[in-house]
Amino acid sequence: MTAFDDLMAYQRETSALGQIAGRLGWDQETVMPRGAAPQRAEEMAAIESVLHARRSDPKVAEWLDQAEPGCEAGQAQVREIRRSYERTIKVPADLAKAIARVTSTAQGKWAQARADEDVTAFLPVLEEVVALKREEGAALAQGGNIYDAMVEDYEPYTTGSQIAAIFDEMRPRLVALRAAVLDRPAPQALERAFNETDQMRLSQKLATTFGYDLTRGRVDKAVHPFSSGSGSDVRITTRTNETDPFNCFYSTIHEVGHAAYEQGINPSFALTPLGCGVSMGVHESQSRIYENQLGRSRAFTGWLYGQMIDVFGDFGIADADTFYATVNRVHNGYIRTEADEVQYNLHIMLRFDLERALMAGDLQVRDLEAAWNDRFKADFGYAVDKPSNGCLQDVHWSVGLFGYFPTYSLGNVYAGCLYQALRDAVPDLEKQLAAGDTSCATGWLRENVQQHGGLYAPREIIRRASGVEPGPEPLLAYLERKFGALYGL
Amino acid sequence: MTAFDDLMAYQRETSALGQIAGRLGWDQETVMPRGAAPQRAEEMAAIESVLHARRSDPKVAEWLDQAEPGCEAGQAQVREIRRSYERTIKVPADLAKAIARVTSTAQGKWAQARADEDVTAFLPVLEEVVALKREEGAALAQGGNIYDAMVEDYEPYTTGSQIAAIFDEMRPRLVALRAAVLDRPAPQALERAFNETDQMRLSQKLATTFGYDLTRGRVDKAVHPFSSGSGSDVRITTRTNETDPFNCFYSTIHEVGHAAYEQGINPSFALTPLGCGVSMGVHESQSRIYENQLGRSRAFTGWLYGQMIDVFGDFGIADADTFYATVNRVHNGYIRTEADEVQYNLHIMLRFDLERALMAGDLQVRDLEAAWNDRFKADFGYAVDKPSNGCLQDVHWSVGLFGYFPTYSLGNVYAGCLYQALRDAVPDLEKQLAAGDTSCATGWLRENVQQHGGLYAPREIIRRASGVEPGPEPLLAYLERKFGALYGL
Repeated sequence: MTAFDDLMAYQRETSALGQIAGRLGWDQETVMPRGAAPQRAEEMAAIESVLHARRSDPKVAEWLDQAEPGCEAGQAQVREIRRSYERTIKVPADLAKAIARVTSTAQGKWAQARADEDVTAFLPVLEEVVALKREEGAALAQGGNIYDAMVEDYEPYTTGSQIAAIFDEMRPRLVALRAAVLDRPAPQALERAFNETDQMRLSQKLATTFGYDLTRGRVDKAVHPFSSGSGSDVRITTRTNETDPFNCFYSTIHEVGHAAYEQGINPSFALTPLGCGVSMGVHESQSRIYENQLGRSRAFTGWLYGQMIDVFGDFGIADADTFYATVNRVHNGYIRTEADEVQYNLHIMLRFDLERALMAGDLQVRDLEAAWNDRFKADFGYAVDKPSNGCLQDVHWSVGLFGYFPTYSLGNVYAGCLYQALRDAVPDLEKQLAAGDTSCATGWLRENVQQHGGLYAPREIIRRASGVEPGPEPLLAYLERKFGALYGL
Repeated sequence: MTAFDDLMAYQRETSALGQIAGRLGWDQETVMPRGAAPQRAEEMAAIESVLHARRSDPKVAEWLDQAEPGCEAGQAQVREIRRSYERTIKVPADLAKAIARVTSTAQGKWAQARADEDVTAFLPVLEEVVALKREEGAALAQGGNIYDAMVEDYEPYTTGSQIAAIFDEMRPRLVALRAAVLDRPAPQALERAFNETDQMRLSQKLATTFGYDLTRGRVDKAVHPFSSGSGSDVRITTRTNETDPFNCFYSTIHEVGHAAYEQGINPSFALTPLGCGVSMGVHESQSRIYENQLGRSRAFTGWLYGQMIDVFGDFGIADADTFYATVNRVHNGYIRTEADEVQYNLHIMLRFDLERALMAGDLQVRDLEAAWNDRFKADFGYAVDKPSNGCLQDVHWSVGLFGYFPTYSLGNVYAGCLYQALRDAVPDLEKQLAAGDTSCATGWLRENVQQHGGLYAPREIIRRASGVEPGPEPLLAYLERKFGALYGL
């Protein structure tokens, strides 16, 4: 046994324990009895403490010093284990515990404040979270940029300035596109009820249509759709809304994008740092391209229209062109998670600028609501009516997820690059999608993105797959083309 | 922080990790995608390895040496932590790993051999298991009796000789009762189909009727019914068989007995060694008294008869007395898990004597089948027709569970003692059960048995609750009285 072998054997056990922690999260959101919550918190703390101890064990440093990985994958393993080790030891254990303690309280206070529409009830605990996260960021950055150090947790090898440059290029064109689209007559909306059992049945069909392997996964209902797990146990959840079947269908397709990424990774990487998606941004690129560029295309919605007629009978939409416009309806709204392709990224940029200013100390928590509302008015043209539609709408900040929001839009940007390359690689893509066949598209994504897991850095994997330097132009061109045609601009 | 406080804080985390391992087991039997099995084996091995390391950590020995627990419960905690520590360090790590490896293979080989009716295909791996378990038993016994050391894992503070003395008293009376009962005409059997969804619905009602708290538990379907978890997350499973609704109902009531024990434990013991059932025998005493003495009583079956009429309409049984006889029908059969109250313990005694002889070296694995078949003929009066109805029917030995079988019958013996005391404590018990009200009965069991968790040794808890020295007389008298009346002996 070489030092590298020892390191990998140890890491394999750590990864297995990490999978267990993930499965507890799935259990909590799907099947856990509600009275079990306090005990579950202790169970999660216990396994997180085991994971922390393993990730920062001095043995890991010794093995890392002596490891001589032969191949490219071995070098990537060592790179990622070193990154995790150094990240873990930089943060003092007391600080990590304080963050865990405060954020677990803060989430409850956030939920109550949102229900009560009472921002001031949330601000004191948010101040604590922000102060602790800035302290953590300073420990991680070691003199460098605090926000960059946080982004690193979700989108490694990417900085806040890089993201800001991308977003600066996107914002004016998205604001202009949004204004132009909303100036035009709105397409027809759905106006009847859709049986929820039938929604779930069609949803299951959509999952397999997009290549989800149900022998290594399962679909359940949960309040918030998510995908969880790596390797051969990757589960998704979706939800149903009687009057909005698209919520169910596109949540499913979105989560299948995440799950297919995990299921598509080279099996020899299983239970290693390379055996899961490389970053939140690349993860989101898969969920978004499945959901939007493929799932909301004219070709695929044509097939879906037929499926819905089969299941629900005539549901008041006359033809496939109208259905395509209905699926892609752009509408005013306050809520990020309900936003359409045109407006979604504007919601993200708002959060990115505010959280970056909070971390830099340029914005105080007490001024957050005003800053949010000003920015919303500037980009969307109307005022926030209540905090639950404004700065209290998302859970992220209460649980300390600073640096996470921009990865949603990076995912859209990456999906734009990938889709451009995919269309060149599969010339009859639209014909296939129109027949409900996604196999060439998902096969291309598996081959060029998914199988590599954590082997390459996020931007490198997108560069390799798309053949271009990752940037927002393909996404913007796609949105302007698609919605320009849909709205006759 | 005293040494005792440190010890308990550490133990609390260990217990939380133990709960996680249990939850993985539940997941595996209920919701896990089938393709996830190999990865799950690695996950289980990883958490078991963490648990083993924690249970045998030298820090535990230091704390144990210095701990000065003040109260009775503290002393019991120290006693149980010491027992676990000493048990863990006595078995060499290599031996523990070899047992884990061999038994995981052996279970598959057993299942295949059972399907093929091929005992010889199973014997080589069973020989390995027996050899390794004898080695483990010798390490644990340190010169003492090997089988006693194994019983200790499931029924602490109890020896093979104590059990043998109890069983020797039971066997002749049970053989005689069995023969007399089967000499009489058989009661009417069920002869129609019962909708499985309705079975599950009534099953859920039975669970709450017996006091199962669904805010801290849930009921799912699984191939083999079981109860899993402690504290505030105690889940049960049951199964349905279209022509045999009693299988579903009494499996549910049985598992609710186990679950109610866990749910009834003093909450201040949660996530400590006292926070779960003290032994398999006491556990089984709860499941059996719920299932048999209460659930199969004339009074309760009268109520159940009405429930079944409500749900299924007329199902061909004319009145409650006939129904009571049908529920308690004694019938020939080879399979332990399908046996009635009269014959169940005979199946156990057969296994107890054989496994005790195997561990003592008095019986060789190659002679096991013949020994099984001889004994079966002697007690039941007819010959085993095929191995799946004989020595291949149970999974236990393949996974190394020697010393486990007798706890099933100890549970029946303990249930007999408890029921005698319960009838004295609740004079109008039958009236309550006839109204479908188990609250006084289950309340008495909670107060006198369940709440104590691991505080007292198994025989002590039964002695305290029943006021008698635990022995088989109350059970035998109950069986002779009940089945004597039912069969007009």
